[in-house]
Amino acid sequence: MKKLKVSVIGSTGYTGKELIKILLNHYEVELIHLVSSTFAGEKLSEVFPDFLNQLDKKLISLNPELIAQDSDLIFTALPHTVSMDLVPKFLKRGVKVIDLSADYRLKDPSIYREWYKKEHNHISREFLSQAIYGLPEIYGRQIERTSLVANPGCYSTSVILGLAPLFAYHLVEVKDIIIDSKSGITGAGRGISLDLHFPECNENMKAYKVTGHNHIPEIEQELSRIYSGGDNKNKEDKIKVSFTPHLIPINRGILSTCYLNLKDRNMEEKEILEVYREFYQKAPFVRIFEPPSLPEIKFVVGTNYCDIGFKIDKRVGKVVIISVIDNLLKGAAGQAVQNMNIMSRLPETYALK
Amino acid sequence: MKKLKVSVIGSTGYTGKELIKILLNHYEVELIHLVSSTFAGEKLSEVFPDFLNQLDKKLISLNPELIAQDSDLIFTALPHTVSMDLVPKFLKRGVKVIDLSADYRLKDPSIYREWYKKEHNHISREFLSQAIYGLPEIYGRQIERTSLVANPGCYSTSVILGLAPLFAYHLVEVKDIIIDSKSGITGAGRGISLDLHFPECNENMKAYKVTGHNHIPEIEQELSRIYSGGDNKNKEDKIKVSFTPHLIPINRGILSTCYLNLKDRNMEEKEILEVYREFYQKAPFVRIFEPPSLPEIKFVVGTNYCDIGFKIDKRVGKVVIISVIDNLLKGAAGQAVQNMNIMSRLPETYALK
Amino acid sequence: MKKLKVSVIGSTGYTGKELIKILLNHYEVELIHLVSSTFAGEKLSEVFPDFLNQLDKKLISLNPELIAQDSDLIFTALPHTVSMDLVPKFLKRGVKVIDLSADYRLKDPSIYREWYKKEHNHISREFLSQAIYGLPEIYGRQIERTSLVANPGCYSTSVILGLAPLFAYHLVEVKDIIIDSKSGITGAGRGISLDLHFPECNENMKAYKVTGHNHIPEIEQELSRIYSGGDNKNKEDKIKVSFTPHLIPINRGILSTCYLNLKDRNMEEKEILEVYREFYQKAPFVRIFEPPSLPEIKFVVGTNYCDIGFKIDKRVGKVVIISVIDNLLKGAAGQAVQNMNIMSRLPETYALK
Amino acid sequence: MKKLKVSVIGSTGYTGKELIKILLNHYEVELIHLVSSTFAGEKLSEVFPDFLNQLDKKLISLNPELIAQDSDLIFTALPHTVSMDLVPKFLKRGVKVIDLSADYRLKDPSIYREWYKKEHNHISREFLSQAIYGLPEIYGRQIERTSLVANPGCYSTSVILGLAPLFAYHLVEVKDIIIDSKSGITGAGRGISLDLHFPECNENMKAYKVTGHNHIPEIEQELSRIYSGGDNKNKEDKIKVSFTPHLIPINRGILSTCYLNLKDRNMEEKEILEVYREFYQKAPFVRIFEPPSLPEIKFVVGTNYCDIGFKIDKRVGKVVIISVIDNLLKGAAGQAVQNMNIMSRLPETYALK
Repeated sequence: MKKLKVSVIGSTGYTGKELIKILLNHYEVELIHLVSSTFAGEKLSEVFPDFLNQLDKKLISLNPELIAQDSDLIFTALPHTVSMDLVPKFLKRGVKVIDLSADYRLKDPSIYREWYKKEHNHISREFLSQAIYGLPEIYGRQIERTSLVANPGCYSTSVILGLAPLFAYHLVEVKDIIIDSKSGITGAGRGISLDLHFPECNENMKAYKVTGHNHIPEIEQELSRIYSGGDNKNKEDKIKVSFTPHLIPINRGILSTCYLNLKDRNMEEKEILEVYREFYQKAPFVRIFEPPSLPEIKFVVGTNYCDIGFKIDKRVGKVVIISVIDNLLKGAAGQAVQNMNIMSRLPETYALK
Repeated sequence: MKKLKVSVIGSTGYTGKELIKILLNHYEVELIHLVSSTFAGEKLSEVFPDFLNQLDKKLISLNPELIAQDSDLIFTALPHTVSMDLVPKFLKRGVKVIDLSADYRLKDPSIYREWYKKEHNHISREFLSQAIYGLPEIYGRQIERTSLVANPGCYSTSVILGLAPLFAYHLVEVKDIIIDSKSGITGAGRGISLDLHFPECNENMKAYKVTGHNHIPEIEQELSRIYSGGDNKNKEDKIKVSFTPHLIPINRGILSTCYLNLKDRNMEEKEILEVYREFYQKAPFVRIFEPPSLPEIKFVVGTNYCDIGFKIDKRVGKVVIISVIDNLLKGAAGQAVQNMNIMSRLPETYALK
Repeated sequence: MKKLKVSVIGSTGYTGKELIKILLNHYEVELIHLVSSTFAGEKLSEVFPDFLNQLDKKLISLNPELIAQDSDLIFTALPHTVSMDLVPKFLKRGVKVIDLSADYRLKDPSIYREWYKKEHNHISREFLSQAIYGLPEIYGRQIERTSLVANPGCYSTSVILGLAPLFAYHLVEVKDIIIDSKSGITGAGRGISLDLHFPECNENMKAYKVTGHNHIPEIEQELSRIYSGGDNKNKEDKIKVSFTPHLIPINRGILSTCYLNLKDRNMEEKEILEVYREFYQKAPFVRIFEPPSLPEIKFVVGTNYCDIGFKIDKRVGKVVIISVIDNLLKGAAGQAVQNMNIMSRLPETYALK
Repeated sequence: MKKLKVSVIGSTGYTGKELIKILLNHYEVELIHLVSSTFAGEKLSEVFPDFLNQLDKKLISLNPELIAQDSDLIFTALPHTVSMDLVPKFLKRGVKVIDLSADYRLKDPSIYREWYKKEHNHISREFLSQAIYGLPEIYGRQIERTSLVANPGCYSTSVILGLAPLFAYHLVEVKDIIIDSKSGITGAGRGISLDLHFPECNENMKAYKVTGHNHIPEIEQELSRIYSGGDNKNKEDKIKVSFTPHLIPINRGILSTCYLNLKDRNMEEKEILEVYREFYQKAPFVRIFEPPSLPEIKFVVGTNYCDIGFKIDKRVGKVVIISVIDNLLKGAAGQAVQNMNIMSRLPETYALK
């Protein structure tokens, strides 16, 4: 079989690095161009000596025509608001794109503008409608047929997978949804700042962007769609969440603790267990823990799994969901490759287990 | 002035160690007996070489009569259910006690039995009614006059101080109270277990005792009392909370993120700020952060402060409270010394700043 | 091709776990028995939930006959002094063994007795002479033909690979050899102790077993053999080293800093570089860094590489060697699989890249 | 008694912050000016919220005349090569200076030029001869009488204190001296860089500036002076050392492991113990550990102690010295205050215990 020609734009962030690591071990992929504006001209193994003797390819600067011409599929691991202008150039040339930024995740451009302070222009807006939200456990079929996947945010992945069955089966109330997430520091990216200076993070914890993190709109969009059966035009179904992210001094991993009110206060844990198992029975990367077992970050670090556990709090009529992922894998690069596999009709788990 | 004769029972746990460190720098205190059942016969500086050349005192085994006879005040830093039988022996001999276990925190013995699986006997039950819950910011006056302080739990301290003004002024609803707490590993104590083996904790996070942590009843008792103005016999005022503790791979510190529904959805942050400032105007160890500033663990590690910040989430009508303490200081040993200072009519901040 | 039937004894230590992780992805291997005395009867995925949905095999207790009968090759990941009595039982039944303990590493039983305080009996002593020290970069040919590999110690691997070319080419003096090694905490094993309790290790560093660590004799044995061209009967060639291991609060990785006197004080770094490159030209898991670049732990964690760098200190006529490995992979399980591949005439790098 | 008027230049680095923390608790000191070029105009408690409610002083920009006029003593915590031009301005105005840079540590300006790539001009050179190397355990008497203290480097402090008795008593050979040091990340300062970005440091270790760290010349100068009895003009006594610093992912602490050849290979550990105890009998901040006990970083973090332990390695005729300090305290700010106390005829340990 002819290998898939793949390029990566944004190769020297943490996500780009993980992406290349996975693709390097993917036998159906040929790595074509590795783009880095910061390190163009250097070898990848000079930036990351881990790649020494494995991949000594040179990083190039961004040349959209060249890259489009040589590639079947392109991963864009760029900052939000930068990706939106570049992606259409590739799609117009018939190249598939998996965009790891937020630019194509939000269906409603006015919500995008509200949270990202930038307007989609008429070109990117056109492609927005084609974009599929790249959560294979929910949108597997559409991902097969699309040319543009909007790869989900890391927090969003842990939260939406953690809560989807509850909303799909209407088991919980749609208000008073609390999501308290904790992330390792790679989630904040590879750009340096005093906040992420080692002694400032180490032996510390903090909440940040409280009430204002921009994964909120995609969580709300997706939970609303799941709740309303894929159609959230009905205003009353519009779900709102309280979301607080925290930084924890570990390298990798997200743990989201979610609190929801059960509609039926007499519901038993085994009923919920069944619902989750059924919902995810065909999902190779979701593992459901049977109470009282609960997932921990270390079970998923270095893997593409999302591990989900839960407990009912009878005293207050709530269910507590614990969902963990590796933010760089299921929360970014791993999920992107999972999407690539599906788009390319390869086994979903290829190079990911 | 004659120095206060103080003994510590449970000297070689993390709390006992911190207690001794503080008392060593307290010029009005004379350290009399240091008790450790595990290390009796060894010098303190053999167990903790940090004390070398500072305090070479020998640890002794438990002898209640001797200790009571020689001491004015005793700190009992013992496991729950062990303390209850020992404390009355000291009180009967006229010695003051600051008990760092949970045994004298819960006013209702049936709730104690429910959460701790042990019954108070008639002796300890008698002293229970004299015990003052040792949160000086709430019970300062009663602490002055009591012989028995039940030093609060670490999580409880961060939560109750974080929420007290909201309940005292009836600003929030009494249901759908979510408390998501994160603690450093010293919070789990110095007893070894596979869970707390370095490579099992490091680069990991996990929730534990989900829905069942035994700080829940004291948080509920105290919030209910504050809400009802010191009297929570009124059943309707009985507040219930959702509480989830997490272990984070740092040594010290607790960060509690609390989510509450505002009664008045139009309330502004500056109004809340005023309420908190007024409530804590005489509290030397509570610092209120003005939004959008929020406290972080590193601001309080090594101090007796409780730092509190908050943000209103207009979209969902909630207030999010962030409260941080050092679990070994304001969450245990520091608060215990603060209580000792008050009981002994010394300046509240003595040896703590 | 028929798969190799492999069993692992000591499955629930850190080394055993890594071994199983690698073997699980090794397409020429069939995992037969997983032995654990502590957890026999439980599923592997109950002990390590990371294996959930991947390997739910039950752990069994030790039954040498059964295991020998069903296996082509057995990994023994047992404590020192325990392995020596078990290994002959497998060898006598024609099963190949890779022993990860120290029991078959030292050629001279009197040195073994001196450092491990136990005597080889006549049976184990007989097999000792057949054992090959499992460093493929040095003994690749012998490993191909043996039935018993003594897998090297983790420190020893980093040190011997780091220094071999200098001794093989007689570039350094054989006295005043200083080796200062730093290891992550998994190197101390999964057995719990107060020393390895999270808050005791975290934010700490310490030297341990100073002058007395039992990797010293195998380092000396191997450096002596390399120096004397494979024959170290010549007493004068017996090399002695100063070795100090340290514990560092990270999970994985060893960094060894070695200081040696150059015979020729005018030697240039590029000459040494050539020597190292030549010596390791056929070694797929050794990477040589060109000065002034130096390896760091993070370049090798999660890999089977040994990265080596160096610098000449003209002022004092010394060469400083920096050698890093992942203690659980090239320092234990990875190297063991590398040995298995060689013994089984599979590609040396199979399942390791 | 009139308080000492003290100013700090370079207030917002890690050393400056520690200095202010100590001085804040020093009852004989009045903090006059806090200078920060980066944060001038902000309050200290805005830069470091730890100081909230404790010290809300505004940071000012550098105005040498003003600062000299208002201060009795000035701490200059500035980068190397910047300090040299500023310090004379204060000294000429009769203000005492404790300089925490390297600029006044090296007696020989040509060695300074060689290692720091900058020339002393005739003014700074003049004051160089007055400067006392600020190691109170060695130069206590001179420090009492000087106006300019050159506060030692952090590595240098751990090494010189660790080795001084061996050289003072001529117990070791002056060649083949190996010093392998490991430092927490605050040692690299508060200036951000990709190298010190949390995920780049965490779970990593590395050697850096191998053979070229600029604490080497001050270690050599001081060991040579101690060896030659305070006078190292004798060329033959000029001691050279091998020194390799490493970065370890902890916030604070230095552990130096030093290897030296004993002149008398039959020397016993108890003889060395006596020598160390005698040498440091009047040093309140040096603690000697009796073999086989050895110091660890955690024993000194947060203190001004230097803890020293050792072991003789009979097999190779060497002594191994382990010396630990908190790099920000005994390695910088704590030692600076110790020097201030001595210069001001206050008890040496004031505000440091």
